[in-house]
Amino acid sequence: MAEKYDELYQELIRRCKEISVLGSCGGLLGWDERTYMPRAGAPARAEQMSYLAGMTHKMFTDPRIGDILSELEKSPLVKDAVSDSAVNINETRYQYDKSVKIPQRLVEEITHTTTMAQGVWAEARAVNDFPKFLPWMEKILKLELELANCLGYKKEAYDALLDNYEPGATYESIGKVFADLRKELVPLVAAIKDSKRKPDLSIIERDYPVDRQALFGQSGSIAIGFDFQAGRLDITTHPFCSGIAPGDTRITTRYNPRHLGQAFFGILHESGHGIYDQGLDTAHFGMPRGESVSLGIHESQSRMWENLVGRGKPFWRHFFPRAQQMFPEALGTVKFDDFYFAINDVRPSLIRVEADEVTYNLHILLRFELEYALLKGDLLPKDMPGAWNEKFQHFFGITPKTDADGCMQDVHWSAGYLGYFPTYALGNLYSAQFFAKAKEEIKDLDTQFAAGNFSELKKWLNKNIHSHGKRYRAEKLVQVVTGKPLSHVPLMTYLKTKYGELYGL
Amino acid sequence: MAEKYDELYQELIRRCKEISVLGSCGGLLGWDERTYMPRAGAPARAEQMSYLAGMTHKMFTDPRIGDILSELEKSPLVKDAVSDSAVNINETRYQYDKSVKIPQRLVEEITHTTTMAQGVWAEARAVNDFPKFLPWMEKILKLELELANCLGYKKEAYDALLDNYEPGATYESIGKVFADLRKELVPLVAAIKDSKRKPDLSIIERDYPVDRQALFGQSGSIAIGFDFQAGRLDITTHPFCSGIAPGDTRITTRYNPRHLGQAFFGILHESGHGIYDQGLDTAHFGMPRGESVSLGIHESQSRMWENLVGRGKPFWRHFFPRAQQMFPEALGTVKFDDFYFAINDVRPSLIRVEADEVTYNLHILLRFELEYALLKGDLLPKDMPGAWNEKFQHFFGITPKTDADGCMQDVHWSAGYLGYFPTYALGNLYSAQFFAKAKEEIKDLDTQFAAGNFSELKKWLNKNIHSHGKRYRAEKLVQVVTGKPLSHVPLMTYLKTKYGELYGL
Repeated sequence: MAEKYDELYQELIRRCKEISVLGSCGGLLGWDERTYMPRAGAPARAEQMSYLAGMTHKMFTDPRIGDILSELEKSPLVKDAVSDSAVNINETRYQYDKSVKIPQRLVEEITHTTTMAQGVWAEARAVNDFPKFLPWMEKILKLELELANCLGYKKEAYDALLDNYEPGATYESIGKVFADLRKELVPLVAAIKDSKRKPDLSIIERDYPVDRQALFGQSGSIAIGFDFQAGRLDITTHPFCSGIAPGDTRITTRYNPRHLGQAFFGILHESGHGIYDQGLDTAHFGMPRGESVSLGIHESQSRMWENLVGRGKPFWRHFFPRAQQMFPEALGTVKFDDFYFAINDVRPSLIRVEADEVTYNLHILLRFELEYALLKGDLLPKDMPGAWNEKFQHFFGITPKTDADGCMQDVHWSAGYLGYFPTYALGNLYSAQFFAKAKEEIKDLDTQFAAGNFSELKKWLNKNIHSHGKRYRAEKLVQVVTGKPLSHVPLMTYLKTKYGELYGL
Repeated sequence: MAEKYDELYQELIRRCKEISVLGSCGGLLGWDERTYMPRAGAPARAEQMSYLAGMTHKMFTDPRIGDILSELEKSPLVKDAVSDSAVNINETRYQYDKSVKIPQRLVEEITHTTTMAQGVWAEARAVNDFPKFLPWMEKILKLELELANCLGYKKEAYDALLDNYEPGATYESIGKVFADLRKELVPLVAAIKDSKRKPDLSIIERDYPVDRQALFGQSGSIAIGFDFQAGRLDITTHPFCSGIAPGDTRITTRYNPRHLGQAFFGILHESGHGIYDQGLDTAHFGMPRGESVSLGIHESQSRMWENLVGRGKPFWRHFFPRAQQMFPEALGTVKFDDFYFAINDVRPSLIRVEADEVTYNLHILLRFELEYALLKGDLLPKDMPGAWNEKFQHFFGITPKTDADGCMQDVHWSAGYLGYFPTYALGNLYSAQFFAKAKEEIKDLDTQFAAGNFSELKKWLNKNIHSHGKRYRAEKLVQVVTGKPLSHVPLMTYLKTKYGELYGL
């Protein structure tokens, strides 16, 4: 009997691994599309990608997989819920049940509509023409609601979509933490805004030759532990990280020759994602035990290295003298404290991707509330610009002058990614809670950082987060690692301490 | 009835196109493996590639394809042998019958053995240790003979292998032309060797900054018609061209900062391959009518642009002043004739890939004779070094000092590519015969070249060769385009005229 289950389990692994190998081919195609593909290759690329996507979907929804799972669910292999086999069986079941619920027709319609919509969005945004984009937003909302209904949900249609990015999370569960966060964040932003202390931004907005930025960025990436034997760094307009396959994780950045921080912190951010992917257990490649937990947990890793480590004083104790050597004209006579303040400037701004680590969360809360209202039917797509601007004024005390800098600034909705935004703020929350715990467990972390040693933190993350794959859902992982449920407290404590000192609050 | 055939034909196209889409994913994976893949990604890449290869093999050998072909072969669609439908049906049948003859086990064994053997070859070559490579060469020869037996042949086992690279060609058919070629080539090489005139090679062996070489090479590639909207140029140790998919053809080169010609002519060569791929009829993508004829015809295109055009006087009437502008330190005071002589230096040398356009063919004839003898059983792998050196002395009047510079210099045999080498010399023969015809039909081609206009020749090649896909086999294509069967005369006439003048013969 045990032998039969063993065979079935091996068949499950073989099938899932095949699907993942095929999926990883799609991963490379996607990376190439955004880095090196010649323009005229786009139609053939779309065909390749959709063919692979269709094929992996077909392979994964094969009823045989459902049958194997049903058998295995009766076996001793699921007895211990956090054992490798139980995690693989249960999480595959979870994905399988979702996949078979979505009709092929809907998958194709969403893919097709969002591909078109992203083109329209880019054009409409360029000329600040929301009405042009509106019919597409309406179509996408309708399709996403249909998708939510196919997937099913207990309370909120929103939950069905959110679950695709943050398995197990619900509007209610994260809404509570977000509300707590908002309550403390809005006054902090206001207090910083009212502070008379302001950094001299000209320090980081001067000539920083791109070739030296590349060297400096790479040295930062290597220092925090991104492995260039198993990865690479390229240039793209929209930076990203792509964990293609075991031993092959690729990050990208963009360089602004008049700004030090954009590329450098971007590289740390993507390296954080990359270090997570490189830390997954390759022995479990293709199975849930070898996959990342959720987008939110992924973002917690990028945010931790970018912000909690990379914008911290100890980090720059090590890197500032090196930055001065690399950019003597720009930084030779700059004082440490002035530099540190400049890279930690906080102020209300219009664009999410350019926001600092304090106001960033407000950008997310705003989107979270608006997209929830859309799905709830409380907000019609046509009323989005007004609702956006009103809420923006309320949160930030400023109003966007154009929809291009307002409700049309992000690609997500045009791509059909409703329910995606919260994972960014969740990432910030997780990262602060994990980091606080790491500092508790590794006593001299600041001293290590100041000496340019980041390997202890990396090891801690490898051990406590990366190597577990999907052993725990995000909510549970936070509990297991930190001993407490997710809360806004660690993030707010971190922000209040750091920025209280900087802005003299 | 006609409707039934139409449906079947559409099904054939749909199936073949799916296989080609999947194959084109493998094309990108292969390109990436040689350009940008991080080192640690190799094992996963091997898995991806072999999975795709296995899947396309399985899809193509589906008995349903055989059944469809059998039906279609009774239909009016094959009535006119050079119609699109007949070409697609007949050439698919040809490939299908070959594919089903090869057992999956043998495919896997050859793939596995040659993957290992290439590693051993690289190591053995580096330390000039032929005995280390010998057992692998013996294994590969055995497997290739088994492959030939599976595929079947009329006269020679060699034909079965050659046919994979040059469909329809036989040892006998090309052996005759090669014998004619050899008879005239050996004395020409000897005469050039004995000539007192020698170019001043220092002209092209001085500082040529790599960044400017890249610009200059790209300008050459664009001038002859490679479309960078539908392609790109990257750097690799071993240059190649990869026609990945419609709109996506990629070439590579390598730069030597102390040599002008290596990268420049290499770029022209790969651009020639690329122009062929870009000239294929994309409406027939995935079917024989949209595929290149053979490796020999492919090589005729690269060789034509590299040598017959790119090493010609008219070409440099246009490009030499531009080269002088781009490299004023190296070429500012150099005379046209001296430069022209330097880029057309001919002398016996040990390494095929560095050989000039005259001696190059002898390198191929030597390999052709030796690999034929191997497959015939007239030469044992263990006797290869001796046989190589003896023949080399006979052909070139020099003997390699090491096997690394002798019989181990090329990767082909370790990769299992027996029967591949002749396509290089065929390429030279085809290119001269095509080019002579083009010059006949486009009267002022030299004047056009001297004015930097290469589009008429490109159009001629597009019309007469590229756009036909596999409508004609190579042998027939030469007849259709030039009105004559393949012969050594055009190539020898070209070489004797050009080098007779240069070396005062």
